Amino acid sequence: VKLYSYFVSSASYRARIALNLKGIEYEYVSIDANKGEHLAAEYLAVNPQGLLPALVDGDNTLTQSLAIIEYLEETRPDPPLLPADPVERARVRALALVPACEMHPVNNRRVRNYIAEDLGHGRDGMISWVGRWNARGFETLEAMLSGNPHTGVFCHGDRPTLADVYLVPQVDVARRFETDVSPYPTVLRIAEACLELPEFQAAKPENQPDAPPS
Amino acid sequence: VKLYSYFVSSASYRARIALNLKGIEYEYVSIDANKGEHLAAEYLAVNPQGLLPALVDGDNTLTQSLAIIEYLEETRPDPPLLPADPVERARVRALALVPACEMHPVNNRRVRNYIAEDLGHGRDGMISWVGRWNARGFETLEAMLSGNPHTGVFCHGDRPTLADVYLVPQVDVARRFETDVSPYPTVLRIAEACLELPEFQAAKPENQPDAPPS
Repeated sequence: VKLYSYFVSSASYRARIALNLKGIEYEYVSIDANKGEHLAAEYLAVNPQGLLPALVDGDNTLTQSLAIIEYLEETRPDPPLLPADPVERARVRALALVPACEMHPVNNRRVRNYIAEDLGHGRDGMISWVGRWNARGFETLEAMLSGNPHTGVFCHGDRPTLADVYLVPQVDVARRFETDVSPYPTVLRIAEACLELPEFQAAKPENQPDAPPS
Repeated sequence: VKLYSYFVSSASYRARIALNLKGIEYEYVSIDANKGEHLAAEYLAVNPQGLLPALVDGDNTLTQSLAIIEYLEETRPDPPLLPADPVERARVRALALVPACEMHPVNNRRVRNYIAEDLGHGRDGMISWVGRWNARGFETLEAMLSGNPHTGVFCHGDRPTLADVYLVPQVDVARRFETDVSPYPTVLRIAEACLELPEFQAAKPENQPDAPPS
């Protein structure tokens, strides 16, 4: 198994967490998005979308972090990242889809750059843009998590699931772009619980081979 | 089964297509997002996220269109919206995730309004914004679809799948917001094939009970 990844890409971070939680060893192939390597011919031959991550498993190349993780769940079911019950699975997927569909796509690199540079809102405008959509998403997550009887040490019960795989990188994005996360205590408590696990620690941006020396 | 829907919401459109393809009869509950009903207390009690759609199945309320459709797939597997093989499932999911994660979230109502009004780019700026991200997404879809041996009458083979459920509403968004779709012939051919099916026709925005008279 080979993962095309960039240390600070939050979609790559999700895939790294999922691989670690499933105990799958993988080769790390760094694609430096800051240098535009994700749009170079070499990587476009792997993933024509030019987005990270991509996973190579034998003869197959998979793209889109959620499709990759659902594939890992189907081909390496143990330990599971989704509960067994369909209604509980839907809750876990809905929790993951808040970062996946409401937060990250509006705040990713190409959108940030377009807001700051092409639309001329500068760094301050970009920080405010990121903060706006992050805040909405975290409010939703806090509402879905706090007081729900399924919420445990982690988003759903006492084992990490797909929901945690998506939560932790989004909290990291919030910190990098100065979004105040203090109004979301359940989100923060769960992110901290996750980061006590070696599988999450090993997946952190600063622990990747392509991270700059601290 | 009850679906909280707004005729012109593309996430609602996806859920309607999936319900129709699975032959599930449902009660249509209109939430007029144009009048802000999605943010009123009555609907927030159903879905605290204030996003459409929401599906009520017995005692359970489900949110996020992808979580809803995966739930329908698990609880009503016939006819399937995903192939049996894990690699093929990953391809279908990745195709669905291009509209779900790269196009729709950047172009939905609240983001459009923020670009046009709060950031002061007006209607022209909003149309240009929508067009930019639509074009990127359709380019990706066209690259993933054209020339791939799995592409058939529909996105994956000769039966509609989750990928088609996501493709058709996004083409509708493109038309409403004046994105030129002519550079994407495979996308267009497949969307047209889908719309020949009664399950897609019945799900179209203009055929919903809350659509204005034409």
